[in-house]
Amino acid sequence: MSAPSGLINETTKGVYVIAATPFADNGELDLESVDSLTDFYLEKGVTGLTILGMMGEAPKLSEAETTTVMQRVLKRVGGGVPVVVGVSDASDRNVERLSREAMSLGAAGVMVAPVPNLKTDDQVYAYYANVATQLGREIPICLQDFPQSTGVHTSVSVIHRLVDAFPQIVMLKHEDFPGMRKLSQVREQSAAAGRRRISILVGNGGLFLPQEMLRGADGAMTGFAYPEMLVQVCRLFHAGEPEQAEDLFNLYLPLLRHEFQYGIGLALRKETLRRRGAIRSAYVRRPGPVLDATDHAELGRLIGRLEAALG
Amino acid sequence: MSAPSGLINETTKGVYVIAATPFADNGELDLESVDSLTDFYLEKGVTGLTILGMMGEAPKLSEAETTTVMQRVLKRVGGGVPVVVGVSDASDRNVERLSREAMSLGAAGVMVAPVPNLKTDDQVYAYYANVATQLGREIPICLQDFPQSTGVHTSVSVIHRLVDAFPQIVMLKHEDFPGMRKLSQVREQSAAAGRRRISILVGNGGLFLPQEMLRGADGAMTGFAYPEMLVQVCRLFHAGEPEQAEDLFNLYLPLLRHEFQYGIGLALRKETLRRRGAIRSAYVRRPGPVLDATDHAELGRLIGRLEAALG
Amino acid sequence: MSAPSGLINETTKGVYVIAATPFADNGELDLESVDSLTDFYLEKGVTGLTILGMMGEAPKLSEAETTTVMQRVLKRVGGGVPVVVGVSDASDRNVERLSREAMSLGAAGVMVAPVPNLKTDDQVYAYYANVATQLGREIPICLQDFPQSTGVHTSVSVIHRLVDAFPQIVMLKHEDFPGMRKLSQVREQSAAAGRRRISILVGNGGLFLPQEMLRGADGAMTGFAYPEMLVQVCRLFHAGEPEQAEDLFNLYLPLLRHEFQYGIGLALRKETLRRRGAIRSAYVRRPGPVLDATDHAELGRLIGRLEAALG
Amino acid sequence: MSAPSGLINETTKGVYVIAATPFADNGELDLESVDSLTDFYLEKGVTGLTILGMMGEAPKLSEAETTTVMQRVLKRVGGGVPVVVGVSDASDRNVERLSREAMSLGAAGVMVAPVPNLKTDDQVYAYYANVATQLGREIPICLQDFPQSTGVHTSVSVIHRLVDAFPQIVMLKHEDFPGMRKLSQVREQSAAAGRRRISILVGNGGLFLPQEMLRGADGAMTGFAYPEMLVQVCRLFHAGEPEQAEDLFNLYLPLLRHEFQYGIGLALRKETLRRRGAIRSAYVRRPGPVLDATDHAELGRLIGRLEAALG
Repeated sequence: MSAPSGLINETTKGVYVIAATPFADNGELDLESVDSLTDFYLEKGVTGLTILGMMGEAPKLSEAETTTVMQRVLKRVGGGVPVVVGVSDASDRNVERLSREAMSLGAAGVMVAPVPNLKTDDQVYAYYANVATQLGREIPICLQDFPQSTGVHTSVSVIHRLVDAFPQIVMLKHEDFPGMRKLSQVREQSAAAGRRRISILVGNGGLFLPQEMLRGADGAMTGFAYPEMLVQVCRLFHAGEPEQAEDLFNLYLPLLRHEFQYGIGLALRKETLRRRGAIRSAYVRRPGPVLDATDHAELGRLIGRLEAALG
Repeated sequence: MSAPSGLINETTKGVYVIAATPFADNGELDLESVDSLTDFYLEKGVTGLTILGMMGEAPKLSEAETTTVMQRVLKRVGGGVPVVVGVSDASDRNVERLSREAMSLGAAGVMVAPVPNLKTDDQVYAYYANVATQLGREIPICLQDFPQSTGVHTSVSVIHRLVDAFPQIVMLKHEDFPGMRKLSQVREQSAAAGRRRISILVGNGGLFLPQEMLRGADGAMTGFAYPEMLVQVCRLFHAGEPEQAEDLFNLYLPLLRHEFQYGIGLALRKETLRRRGAIRSAYVRRPGPVLDATDHAELGRLIGRLEAALG
Repeated sequence: MSAPSGLINETTKGVYVIAATPFADNGELDLESVDSLTDFYLEKGVTGLTILGMMGEAPKLSEAETTTVMQRVLKRVGGGVPVVVGVSDASDRNVERLSREAMSLGAAGVMVAPVPNLKTDDQVYAYYANVATQLGREIPICLQDFPQSTGVHTSVSVIHRLVDAFPQIVMLKHEDFPGMRKLSQVREQSAAAGRRRISILVGNGGLFLPQEMLRGADGAMTGFAYPEMLVQVCRLFHAGEPEQAEDLFNLYLPLLRHEFQYGIGLALRKETLRRRGAIRSAYVRRPGPVLDATDHAELGRLIGRLEAALG
Repeated sequence: MSAPSGLINETTKGVYVIAATPFADNGELDLESVDSLTDFYLEKGVTGLTILGMMGEAPKLSEAETTTVMQRVLKRVGGGVPVVVGVSDASDRNVERLSREAMSLGAAGVMVAPVPNLKTDDQVYAYYANVATQLGREIPICLQDFPQSTGVHTSVSVIHRLVDAFPQIVMLKHEDFPGMRKLSQVREQSAAAGRRRISILVGNGGLFLPQEMLRGADGAMTGFAYPEMLVQVCRLFHAGEPEQAEDLFNLYLPLLRHEFQYGIGLALRKETLRRRGAIRSAYVRRPGPVLDATDHAELGRLIGRLEAALG
């Protein structure tokens, strides 16, 4: 794991939880819940936090709210663990502004997803190359590879080209789907070519976490509402206990698969965090998913079954 | 369950397995494997078969091959269980031609997915209305709602309009994702309005089968390589044992989730069927997914874990 | 035409030019060019302006810049013509905040495009219904129907439902493509049903303006760099001279078709405005299109041919 | 131009008209109209024909109809001009089968569009490399680059790699949109690298034909219902008369732009061909676009205006 108060780098491993952004039932930021959720994550043993990602509803915040969330979380964490900040935006200028603000507040690095409408390898490369150049050598960058949301496909060879050209690119958030072969190819081709080995943390709610750890992932960057499981699974993998890790993982898999549902998954995740006492309201900003009575009962049943299985 | 040799109708329930189409390693149809795979499915207790769906590689067959597969499977089944035939095509004429051919050979009904590029409710309705009119009252139709592949979104209200207007539409293959609310809405709104209740069988590899059964599904229409689990889970649900059903389901969930991966999932499914002795080759027609050594080892490990869990 | 300083309403007609947002070569807002561009549009006789649309690079502005552009344009216009403000955003709260700010500064109405990922008629209706409810009766709304960019398809029947339910929806910016039949259907079905007739202004650079005027459009809301042509063509149509209107339109069609190219079209438009003296720099914020030497020469040749044709 | 009865090659230039497939009003193939349409194209002076493309409704034909169309057209042409055959299919086997059939019947080459779902440069390259390998050195291939329909983006660097590796790839049908820079880049980078120069014919209805000729296109492969204009424009360009060429082009531009509308464009094209006496029915196979009374009147007016302009 990286030094708690330091920057992310190529050797970063463990669980960087994708933090939800808590709102009150009236839609306003709930800063007390920002604190309690941060505490919750820390108590569950996460290695780091990633705030203001897509599942953090970043595009629905005002600029002032964005700054407030950064400040509040970074203060609450108090240097205890690294905090990565999502800075994706339609404009390079805004990516740079947000990145500099985050780093000045004590962030450990920034996460960047590509803008939509990049179609070819060269276009994807050019986008990231430009961002990396603008941000400079001092700001560590995590590439977010999430084509299900962005519509942009980042090929293995583009990843290699970026890693070769920009030392500040130190991490890949891998959540292409299906994408496990890509993970293996990045690892195998990098090793074969003597290329710099970057950190790879996986997303997609952790749906394939055991398989991805076996293929060379260093951990997870995702927001499943039971982060203690992700933490324990990664520890077991790092301790050389893959079977035990997967046994534990599988206990949670029914609920994890349920939360995996795009769109409504965020509402399920926030409701689970609310039930666990981490936040006061499960409100998702509009337009966004809203649970109905059936959804609530179904989630409750799955949580009940998990608790029974855990004994 | 419907009468074994009869047509599908509104009361159809159980497991209609989406049948793979077996090829030899040189890409030719393997008719002996068509027989052995059909036997395999029947031995596992499926209620019916669905052949020539997307996962049956139907768009990659020649017309003669399509006819051969229909004939071979229907002959092998010998009226033992109903067989639904996928007839989706870019042209209405071909949908009709395939449907009439299938029914004349003894099919129990046809499954139709919409053509791409239908954008609004009225466009989707018009497409299906036209197909239903062309096929007439005597051919039972299963609507395939699979927007992840077709790009077409069929709303609850379109489903209602079609059910009201066309008695030959007797079944919905539900595999929108996320789509569980749609399933509940179809059921609840139909009941509230005194509308005809159609059969709903679920797809997506069965990833949410227990939840969908609780929401009113009548069974599954999917091709998971362990159909005996789907059969047993549906039986337990129909017997009023949802907890026992879900316990069983969860044993298979790690492998089922693995096979769920779009694209490569078909190669994983065929390879699993091959390992189980149901077919002789796992060949997928090109262009299509091909497993590499890591994929094979990973699949083997997951199968091994399943077998260990089953004792 | 609506009263110059009033709000847009169902009888609004003419040309609402989609205003570019001028930047300096270093990417900063160029406020002097905001003034000169506003003057340019007014001199060309436009009926109104629409600012902060997609082609106004609104998603690339900071909040402070957004406010500055609104203030600057509205002050420069000085109530001379109505100004519509684009307020589309991922969050309802931001749509409302921007709308109230725009109206308080003197805007004539707001233009709203749907968020992505709305798939069915009911989803599109619900999105707009919610926005209209939030904004209330006093803020006139223009629906922007531009599926090529949003991926959202707004059906004729959704438009009817919205018009029936929300009197504040007074205008449709029609730029579905191909979409002329939709325009006719809205007009014909509204008339047949005795429904409220709303204003329809057309987009897509004006590529089908004469055909759309004949089908019942009230004018154009687009940003072609020769707005005087759009103005004159609409006047001729309103004066009952369609053939003369189309003769004039066709003189500009080669250049208009050139500017129609999605993506690079904005760079061509700004460069044309620069060559016409309306702005000082053709800079488009990054990531965005950049003209190369061939593009410049090609544009210059087409402008030269237009000037020769105009005599 | 290539020798009339020979194969297409790198030096092919001129107009290869994308041939419509004529049906009777009942949807059956109209073989007499296949003949009359072939004669029409030849009389208009086209350099070659391209049959069974997307606008030839190839995916809606049965296999027997496909063979019939190939035979009928090739026989009618009688070696007078080269005929390229569209052979795109979901399966490599079918691409090969159709290609061998076409060549054995006397085709001059085949046109191949990629299957959907190719996302990265390497995936697109691999698809075409595989097809080219299967077809072998003796069958000339035209790459169809039409992402608006296929969703696949073929980058300049992929085109270069394919040209370098496969001498049988002799032609690019260029119809990315906007895509003029791609055309220039292929030409400029090929020249700079001493790479083999292939033939480039442009599509998109010819909407940018003059600009594309100036950027290095060798002609057009498109189906505008007035092919004599395309022929004359290409001749004038080849004769060094670009201004005269563009003057002529612009006379037709209003109608050409009208026909350019995706989807309904095919119905407009067939109706125009019908009005010109080239085919007996404008029927488009279902599901497909159908003109209504307004569409007919609008088309008639535009044709009338063209005829008046031509004097």
